[in-house]
Amino acid sequence: MGRDNVYITNIPLEEALKTYLEALPSPVGTQIIDADEALHRTTAKAVFAKRSSPNDHCAAMDGIAVVAEKTHGANERNPLKLKLHDDFEYVNTGNLMPRGKDAVIMIEDIAPLDDDQVEIIEAAYAWQHIRQVGEDIISGEMILPSRHKIRPLDLGALLSGGADKIEVLNKLKVGILPTGNEIVQSMEALEKGKILDTNSSVIKGLLLELGCEPTVYTPAIDDPVILTAAIKKGIEENDFLMTIAGSSAGSKDFTVNIIEELGDVIVHGVAIKPGKPTILGKMDGKGIVGLPGYPVSAFFAFEKFVKPLIESWYGLPHAHHQVKAKLTQRIISSVKNEELIRVTVGQVEDQWIVTPLSRGAGVTMSLVRADGILTVPRLFEGIESGEWVTVELMKALEDIEQRLVIIGSHDLLIDIIADEMPISSTHVGSFGGLMAMKKKECHIAPIHLIDETTGIYNISSVRKMFPEGDMSLIQGVKRLQGLMVKKGNPKGIKKFEDLTTEGVVFVNRQRGAGTRQLLDFELKKRDIDPENIEGYHRELTTHMAVAVAVLSEGTDVGLGIYAAAETMGLDFIPIGYETYDFLVSNKVLEEPRIKNFIKVLKSEGFRHKLELIGGYTYKDAGSILQIGAQDD
Amino acid sequence: MGRDNVYITNIPLEEALKTYLEALPSPVGTQIIDADEALHRTTAKAVFAKRSSPNDHCAAMDGIAVVAEKTHGANERNPLKLKLHDDFEYVNTGNLMPRGKDAVIMIEDIAPLDDDQVEIIEAAYAWQHIRQVGEDIISGEMILPSRHKIRPLDLGALLSGGADKIEVLNKLKVGILPTGNEIVQSMEALEKGKILDTNSSVIKGLLLELGCEPTVYTPAIDDPVILTAAIKKGIEENDFLMTIAGSSAGSKDFTVNIIEELGDVIVHGVAIKPGKPTILGKMDGKGIVGLPGYPVSAFFAFEKFVKPLIESWYGLPHAHHQVKAKLTQRIISSVKNEELIRVTVGQVEDQWIVTPLSRGAGVTMSLVRADGILTVPRLFEGIESGEWVTVELMKALEDIEQRLVIIGSHDLLIDIIADEMPISSTHVGSFGGLMAMKKKECHIAPIHLIDETTGIYNISSVRKMFPEGDMSLIQGVKRLQGLMVKKGNPKGIKKFEDLTTEGVVFVNRQRGAGTRQLLDFELKKRDIDPENIEGYHRELTTHMAVAVAVLSEGTDVGLGIYAAAETMGLDFIPIGYETYDFLVSNKVLEEPRIKNFIKVLKSEGFRHKLELIGGYTYKDAGSILQIGAQDD
Repeated sequence: MGRDNVYITNIPLEEALKTYLEALPSPVGTQIIDADEALHRTTAKAVFAKRSSPNDHCAAMDGIAVVAEKTHGANERNPLKLKLHDDFEYVNTGNLMPRGKDAVIMIEDIAPLDDDQVEIIEAAYAWQHIRQVGEDIISGEMILPSRHKIRPLDLGALLSGGADKIEVLNKLKVGILPTGNEIVQSMEALEKGKILDTNSSVIKGLLLELGCEPTVYTPAIDDPVILTAAIKKGIEENDFLMTIAGSSAGSKDFTVNIIEELGDVIVHGVAIKPGKPTILGKMDGKGIVGLPGYPVSAFFAFEKFVKPLIESWYGLPHAHHQVKAKLTQRIISSVKNEELIRVTVGQVEDQWIVTPLSRGAGVTMSLVRADGILTVPRLFEGIESGEWVTVELMKALEDIEQRLVIIGSHDLLIDIIADEMPISSTHVGSFGGLMAMKKKECHIAPIHLIDETTGIYNISSVRKMFPEGDMSLIQGVKRLQGLMVKKGNPKGIKKFEDLTTEGVVFVNRQRGAGTRQLLDFELKKRDIDPENIEGYHRELTTHMAVAVAVLSEGTDVGLGIYAAAETMGLDFIPIGYETYDFLVSNKVLEEPRIKNFIKVLKSEGFRHKLELIGGYTYKDAGSILQIGAQDD
Repeated sequence: MGRDNVYITNIPLEEALKTYLEALPSPVGTQIIDADEALHRTTAKAVFAKRSSPNDHCAAMDGIAVVAEKTHGANERNPLKLKLHDDFEYVNTGNLMPRGKDAVIMIEDIAPLDDDQVEIIEAAYAWQHIRQVGEDIISGEMILPSRHKIRPLDLGALLSGGADKIEVLNKLKVGILPTGNEIVQSMEALEKGKILDTNSSVIKGLLLELGCEPTVYTPAIDDPVILTAAIKKGIEENDFLMTIAGSSAGSKDFTVNIIEELGDVIVHGVAIKPGKPTILGKMDGKGIVGLPGYPVSAFFAFEKFVKPLIESWYGLPHAHHQVKAKLTQRIISSVKNEELIRVTVGQVEDQWIVTPLSRGAGVTMSLVRADGILTVPRLFEGIESGEWVTVELMKALEDIEQRLVIIGSHDLLIDIIADEMPISSTHVGSFGGLMAMKKKECHIAPIHLIDETTGIYNISSVRKMFPEGDMSLIQGVKRLQGLMVKKGNPKGIKKFEDLTTEGVVFVNRQRGAGTRQLLDFELKKRDIDPENIEGYHRELTTHMAVAVAVLSEGTDVGLGIYAAAETMGLDFIPIGYETYDFLVSNKVLEEPRIKNFIKVLKSEGFRHKLELIGGYTYKDAGSILQIGAQDD
């Protein structure tokens, strides 16, 4: 398994982008199209009106057109008679003003005497109720500047100003070439060991939003000859080409060599993470970018290089939607690279807070869940919890503002709630939820913490953490916990004692999780040494993750809720019901978000869905249990 | 000319909308489509993952797959030899983990001994460098909630989670039926007295942005039989129909009677301005809305009724992008109606300011220029200047923030600048500009004010208004002023004295304009009584508006700049050059926006464009002239 030692550089992002922009001329041409077809296109030049609007003086009201001067002196005591054709003409709104007339009297202000005579009791002033030539648009006036993205409203002004043909920027033709032997493009072809090409769909969508014309090519396998042919074709048929995967310097990463051979590699390797193994190249005078294959890396390489490149070619400003917010967790970062951290953002008690999401380069859900990106610059070792940071937003601030922030223990019912109202949820276990609540970083903390002496859930833990009181538990559900094992229970696991059996592999929840606490409580009660349980130190963060692990080869058992076992088709050995509640500060109990949350808990729809899953009781769900100060 | 006395109500907006929403069931169905085609569609139901991602344990690094337990004890002093197939297998990133192996050692951390032996000097821990099943997405997990508009990023997660088919909301089919004898749909058909149908293009664009499938029909003439047929067809072929124009209660407004006859008129007449004569009706169980014909009224009726209706049917939140800002001009409003005022918004010295635009219902450019809408509620007589108001934004706040705010005298060169950098300009004359600057409502005030004693421009006016100094003039241009007359000068106008000639009709600029001041200065010098000039009291607000007026019938002469006369093909009798400068506060001189402005004034491109128009000199354009305190 020989490996070429291709050198990957570590050029700072700004420098790499600048170098690349300078090396590539804009390939964007222009074309003339009908204004009617111009929605969301970008003007190539300023558009000037070819005609005025209105183009003639028009009546602005229904009524009669008169010569203002001839109406002077009319008043209640001296009504003035006017004769059709001699003194006035009838006009409707929008009609051309009859020749010589310079005012309109509203229909409501005239008294018809007979078929061709009317009487008025008030004089008209010159230009009254007339839309003068050019009132809206004056011929020669600029309607739209250049490099303006045309909105629906602009269409009306373009047409009114006689600019029915306009010069717009061409849509950039961009090729997307996925590469790799294991890549397939349909679910049907997705055998074991194959990987579905999800990157192309994402990149295609991003290109469409930028106003490009993307083409996705059939994946090219890792063969230099085939890849070379595919790249040549992609360059030939487009203004710009992206390859996906194979952009690094491994044994099967041919892209960089091919570009080197047929054109120029301008940058290979950028100091960002994720996204480091990006290639910025040039071939036949056109741009070719090699995106990394991991979905998150591909996305960031696109956002940080391709998007600014295209925006610059189109002459469009790079929009910065930012918010300043408080970081809730410490971030450790590499000094060598600029790190791009996906984060959620929430507003709790008038404070904007930021919570980092998974940093795995393969975790596409972290991109779906992300509200924004926090950049930790190069030469920084990280950012401390509690510091104020600037986040570049991926969602509208107005939408984020309306969301309920939930941090704490995970349960499947969170998904049900998320379908009913906008929430942002982070799973850090019950104890993590208590901590987040203490630091005012969430509205709601779902918890299930057993008091080892009384066996009562949650209340004593809350009292300990919030001795001053002022807290409430919104009652949630009782849920069935138990041991999850493979269908048919091949290892014959019946009780906690069986976890230490030779050949039984367990999978655990993370420290701070209520379920972990429950396990440790039960083990202690039975005097079982955790070190005798194989897999005790493998920690996963949700019930579903444990269930999936149990389902897969090499793992036999985990502790979790019935709902997770049922959903994944596992067998289940019940231990008992535990109480899963929602901690909330009394201060926010009257907030619309909280009220809405309670309404959902009490709703028939929610309860029906719990029953469909099974393993829950919900008699008191949504009731408020006030937790007073410790002395109460 | 008989008129039906159809009664138009004056129902408050909220009430009208609520009544209408209750009367109409949602016509939106659902369909199942490929996830790949789902960009910008809206989920009908929550989407749950059908498979985990990854679906098997995979290598997260290039290297060798081992059994962690068997590597324990390896260190620098005790290297461990591993044998291919017996102890390890080679893996690349993304490969399935070989059966039984539970850790990956990175390729960089192994030393190959021969073709089938390697040496390691560090033990592996279990699950090291492995992407576990479900690391990204767990089967059964919710990927997207219902009523979620799908972004490019979401596509990746949908595909990764095996949700390659998803249920989305149908695109609502909406018909647009323009009406009126005078309406034509192409520039070619636009004879005198005809009106181009610009509304349909705007409404169609707005519907596309809302995710509908709009159809624009051929305009129906004002004939009850033809209109009835067109409405029936439109209702039959769509989920929802809008008619444009003919929605009021005039002699040719048949729409309301037709709806009354074939269905139900639920509301006719709403207490908003513009937009009052709106019809909200129902026919064959489907919605039919009659929009007013004036472009601005049609837009507001759409925004206030049709958009909320469609958003409600789609179950999408109504996004509120708002800003609080200080009103710069008093607004007088009707007590009877909610008034929707188009406004520009700007940021000057850390303060957000709002300036009302034209309120004419036919002024489509006011919609193009508008940054937002200020609503003056019913029962309010208006809002005083200086009050803080909430504006619903039509543009991104980030874009507005970057704009240079220019208030003052108008010149064509403002358009040239607007094409080079983002600006917002309001034309209120030189004196209005001074006032705006005094109140800190603009960055730049273009002025040309002559000192009647010295004949020197601008400096003394600035000193008078800003006795404390701290101001500068960014020098602009010298521009040629003169009398604009029709081509060939049919009335033989040569000098100011000719303005009083019987049969000569003049058109004036508004009070406060520098050009008006110049006129009054010249008239006074010559002892001409303005009251002897016909048209002296007809005021227009820009040079171009005056030029267009002179071009049209009934007006002979106006005072203005050479550039306007030249652009409109008028003859021009020069009076002399005047100085047109840009007043600015020293405080903001170093701001990027101001620096950019100066750069444009000094640029070759700008100067070249001035020369193309003619009538300008620009030797000192862009130089700074400090205006000290009065005693300096």
